[in-house]
Amino acid sequence: MNTQTTIKPYVIGLDLGGTNSVFGIVDSRGDIKATTAIKTQGYENADDYVNAAVEALQIIIDQVGGIDNIKAMGIGAPNANYYKGTIEHAPNIKWGKSIVPLADMFSKRLNNIPVAITNDANAAAIGEMAYGVARGMKNFIMITLGTGVGSGIVVNGQLVYGSDGFAGELGHVTMVRENGRTCGCGRTGCLEAYCSATGVARTAREILSSSNEPSLLRELNPENITSLDVSVAVGKGDELALRIFEATGKMLGEACADFATFLSPEAFIFFGGLTKAGDLIMEPIRKAYESHVMNVFKGKAQFLVSGLDGASAAVLGASAIGWDINRESK
Amino acid sequence: MNTQTTIKPYVIGLDLGGTNSVFGIVDSRGDIKATTAIKTQGYENADDYVNAAVEALQIIIDQVGGIDNIKAMGIGAPNANYYKGTIEHAPNIKWGKSIVPLADMFSKRLNNIPVAITNDANAAAIGEMAYGVARGMKNFIMITLGTGVGSGIVVNGQLVYGSDGFAGELGHVTMVRENGRTCGCGRTGCLEAYCSATGVARTAREILSSSNEPSLLRELNPENITSLDVSVAVGKGDELALRIFEATGKMLGEACADFATFLSPEAFIFFGGLTKAGDLIMEPIRKAYESHVMNVFKGKAQFLVSGLDGASAAVLGASAIGWDINRESK
Repeated sequence: MNTQTTIKPYVIGLDLGGTNSVFGIVDSRGDIKATTAIKTQGYENADDYVNAAVEALQIIIDQVGGIDNIKAMGIGAPNANYYKGTIEHAPNIKWGKSIVPLADMFSKRLNNIPVAITNDANAAAIGEMAYGVARGMKNFIMITLGTGVGSGIVVNGQLVYGSDGFAGELGHVTMVRENGRTCGCGRTGCLEAYCSATGVARTAREILSSSNEPSLLRELNPENITSLDVSVAVGKGDELALRIFEATGKMLGEACADFATFLSPEAFIFFGGLTKAGDLIMEPIRKAYESHVMNVFKGKAQFLVSGLDGASAAVLGASAIGWDINRESK
Repeated sequence: MNTQTTIKPYVIGLDLGGTNSVFGIVDSRGDIKATTAIKTQGYENADDYVNAAVEALQIIIDQVGGIDNIKAMGIGAPNANYYKGTIEHAPNIKWGKSIVPLADMFSKRLNNIPVAITNDANAAAIGEMAYGVARGMKNFIMITLGTGVGSGIVVNGQLVYGSDGFAGELGHVTMVRENGRTCGCGRTGCLEAYCSATGVARTAREILSSSNEPSLLRELNPENITSLDVSVAVGKGDELALRIFEATGKMLGEACADFATFLSPEAFIFFGGLTKAGDLIMEPIRKAYESHVMNVFKGKAQFLVSGLDGASAAVLGASAIGWDINRESK
């Protein structure tokens, strides 16, 4: 059946997380027309996972008029290789510990529509270009502040995948070269070790233990403090918590000043729990950036918070990869 | 006169330095067919400079059969803005201290051929793609080790100019965050302050003054030591000089490990006096890179020395911008 000439108004997005796999069918304006979800875990192998996924998907595909209305599918997933369409050695997914050709597996089960896969920070960057605050931008850097610090980099309107599909790991630039914190990547001193949610919580514990200064955070068991607790305390005007945000923002701003030497971006766009604190975190970032960046770049870059709705951002981002494939094949 | 359909086999390259302006007419294989030069200084204004340049150029243009054989012109120059075709506030060029629309000025005098301008490190990167070791590469980073540390970054086969035309200033990432050396850019701790020719000479003076260890470099007045002196001493097996190269290579390798998180390039290509030392400098760079880079990038990037002949590299690089314009306008 030749459907090349018909208009296909939708793309499928899959936000493949360690716990849940959330699917959305999205139109070109970023409106989610239908959603469904399955558990990511609990399958013996990737075939079983894809079978369960397609079974769930079929219901929402039918809701939008069938597969002939679907242009492409985008997947945001950990350890994704864009060039190969694979998930590779994903430590937190039982069926993903080898090399799984997930894009091809979905394509074959979905009438051979194009399917592309990349990591969630790259998906977020493409999502911002398609539906968010980066519409019309050609050069920007997306930074996701979550359990880790991820990034998606857009140069000349294209996502940067590099030579191997794994480019854009700005959470792992070295910010502290001597006696840096251990990072999940096995090295030390990475941006992520300080500015991820766990990094912020660790900064909180360090600052709390270094003085007896009063703080709302002292009401909590230090071991259980989260970055959300810090945000809440900052929101209440807690001085010590504010200093945690300032230290975090300072490092992020200095890192961005280094990133500017690479790309001189129109904007740095931040996504993730920490950004819910708004100016309380964005202002320290911007301030540190402007005081550290080269003169030629001062005052040029915008510092923005993601324009995608938090709850559906990951699915929107993933779906936007679908529009991107389409653009490339034109 | 419509010459759109005729084959134009040559481009003009202009290496606009602080002292000399060297012109070359170059074919698509990188063979320089004719050259000429004028002094860069000594003109009251940019018009006088361009007049003198075109007068000198006309002779070599005639040698290759006239302007109808010239496709485009590329200029490598300090403080060049690619997007605007300007030189902006060039501190070392008397007629370039304001904003000079040099690309347009040359184009008008040369039968309206396309003229583009960028800094010398970007020109070097494009030169490597056109005629050097980066032929066929889509993602690589060029690092020029000269009086300063410059860079040209290629992503998806395109040079990275960023939002304002000034991207690719990797010499100014911060490598030492506390008590770093003062850099020419007015900040402290930049890669350039340590790994440029002057940075290497400064490292030499620091290491020499910190001990009484014998070294061939002690025969020289410390104030006059150059990076070339260090290279010569390294070539003779001088242990102290070797440590200077190791310190320099270590910092360059660690910086490249950070750059890899951005682009995961196929190669880092080095150009400049220091690279004449070959493996004596390249091996410390490579070693530091491999021991600092994220696991996912280990063993993937090549470390190469420029494939362009040193004496004509700058003109070749500049000329290659000419082919690049042509490609973009297709």
